[in-house]
Amino acid sequence: MTLLDIRKMPNQELRYAIGVDLGATKSELGIVDETGKVHQHLRLDTLAEEGDLVVERQILEGILTLQRQGGVPLLGIGVGVAGQIQAETGVVLFAPNLKWDCFPLQTSLQRSLNMPIRVLNDLRAITLGECLYGAGRGCRDLLCVFVGTGIGGGVVSNGRLLTGSTNIFGEIGHLTIDFNGPLCTCGKQGCFEAFAGGWGIAARAREAIQREGQGLASQCLLKLAGSLQGVTAKIVVEAYRQDDPMAKILIHEMQKACIAGCASLVNAYNPSRFILGGGLIDGMPEIIQLIDEGVKRGALQAATHSLEIVKAQLGKQAGVIGSAASIFSMLNMKRDFRD
Amino acid sequence: MTLLDIRKMPNQELRYAIGVDLGATKSELGIVDETGKVHQHLRLDTLAEEGDLVVERQILEGILTLQRQGGVPLLGIGVGVAGQIQAETGVVLFAPNLKWDCFPLQTSLQRSLNMPIRVLNDLRAITLGECLYGAGRGCRDLLCVFVGTGIGGGVVSNGRLLTGSTNIFGEIGHLTIDFNGPLCTCGKQGCFEAFAGGWGIAARAREAIQREGQGLASQCLLKLAGSLQGVTAKIVVEAYRQDDPMAKILIHEMQKACIAGCASLVNAYNPSRFILGGGLIDGMPEIIQLIDEGVKRGALQAATHSLEIVKAQLGKQAGVIGSAASIFSMLNMKRDFRD
Repeated sequence: MTLLDIRKMPNQELRYAIGVDLGATKSELGIVDETGKVHQHLRLDTLAEEGDLVVERQILEGILTLQRQGGVPLLGIGVGVAGQIQAETGVVLFAPNLKWDCFPLQTSLQRSLNMPIRVLNDLRAITLGECLYGAGRGCRDLLCVFVGTGIGGGVVSNGRLLTGSTNIFGEIGHLTIDFNGPLCTCGKQGCFEAFAGGWGIAARAREAIQREGQGLASQCLLKLAGSLQGVTAKIVVEAYRQDDPMAKILIHEMQKACIAGCASLVNAYNPSRFILGGGLIDGMPEIIQLIDEGVKRGALQAATHSLEIVKAQLGKQAGVIGSAASIFSMLNMKRDFRD
Repeated sequence: MTLLDIRKMPNQELRYAIGVDLGATKSELGIVDETGKVHQHLRLDTLAEEGDLVVERQILEGILTLQRQGGVPLLGIGVGVAGQIQAETGVVLFAPNLKWDCFPLQTSLQRSLNMPIRVLNDLRAITLGECLYGAGRGCRDLLCVFVGTGIGGGVVSNGRLLTGSTNIFGEIGHLTIDFNGPLCTCGKQGCFEAFAGGWGIAARAREAIQREGQGLASQCLLKLAGSLQGVTAKIVVEAYRQDDPMAKILIHEMQKACIAGCASLVNAYNPSRFILGGGLIDGMPEIIQLIDEGVKRGALQAATHSLEIVKAQLGKQAGVIGSAASIFSMLNMKRDFRD
């Protein structure tokens, strides 16, 4: 049974799961039904500075609160975390934002809660959510790309979410798009996210300002940012909207990089639907049209003639819905399929 | 049942298929058993200039000859073609080297031969062959990259050969590695194969010679090639071996591009085994070591800590073995699996 079949199943009786979107500053929890609808909802300030055990306790208490409030039987709990997760055990191998290193979140939660728990990468969870309940409905081959501080995503091929040998299939932010380009945080040169991710845009803006000195071109950018260190991607976009010449150069380069990166991804993964989301896309929605035109011009014709490029649909609740979706898909897979 | 399981099946009785490697100048046909051993073998000069129907007749006659010679019952015929193939119908949608355009090879052969026929992309077939019988044995997540005139390959994820929505999953030659780079034959700038494929190396060598004029640096290259138009990737490699300074610059850039492209692919597909093959790799086997070191330095640590990078094993018979393997895998899938 593939992801597509799961959604098509007749729902004699609505089933529920809790989805947790565990972030470094905020965490969201919600009770989600099998049609993707969020019922109860909870938001926490994540106490990441106090360490993994404190955060785990917070999440556990949040789950118990929701469980009491919801009063419905739950199939399980899905938890999306930004980081590398070990596939079978749900150990969070590395989560830089949370400063976690080999934390066995899944087994810890399992000890306290007597139901299936699944810890997975947050963008993988959102891809599942978009596939089952969002912009990917009815599609067997899709690619989700989320452009925020970094760039990440997920790939569904022939109705299956791809995981790879160490559960990091589709690390698309670290595709090289200029092998002589600027150094990325990963140590490689010219990665996609070093040009088009939020941190990359901010870093390139700061470099440009320093190169330019206090010249006219950087006046608007600097004024909006307050200081060199205050320059963020959001501020570059704001300056671009105000016709700041330096911001225009930076954003045009970012758009060119986005088109090149997305055309590469379409050639690499051959999706029939390409879903774009994330903070930078939300802040610059016109880029979807540009990417659509650029990819259809640049990628192989055989890969684009029936390709749709669309915006992600689940919005702010994507993490919660997707994490819960991972429970529905996991249980259905196990029940009906020796995969 | 995945590709891995097929190979592991107990062979009560050996089964046979014919594999056809249909090339624009030569075609190879062979009777292959389920352990990947080639029994009878046949080689033809492909009469591509005389059109698709003549070539189809040649292939058909070759198959009938082999069938007579072999005297074993056949499970079916697999035919690997360099081009885009429609997944279910086996129509060759586009095969530039053969100058074919929408030729229904699979149904045509089916009409003449009363057994299962499968037409598939040649590099996809070789990937299947390497997976079942070559360097990919025992591996569920592998990536094959073949560097010849162009760059192509195949991806196996969780034991399944990925196809994508229009059967061109993994068009890795057209990953952008320099979005401001030279124009590729596909119309996009800075594709992987424009730097590291045979045609790309030759084109860049010709450009460099023209830029340089008849200067000292290009003497050796030109002498080996006879003329500007005679410059090929093979000659550039030969000049590099003779310490020609221009060839050294070109090959060093090609190696840098290969490392960047391969590191991208490892991040994108997260294989546990990465198999390199093709004419340029065979002519410069030391590049495997360079790619191994470069990828392990450049790709994400989570993607490389258990990654093996190895040379393809099936050699000249890869196309024949792989095309036959597609029959074994197809029949096993159909028999045991609603996929």
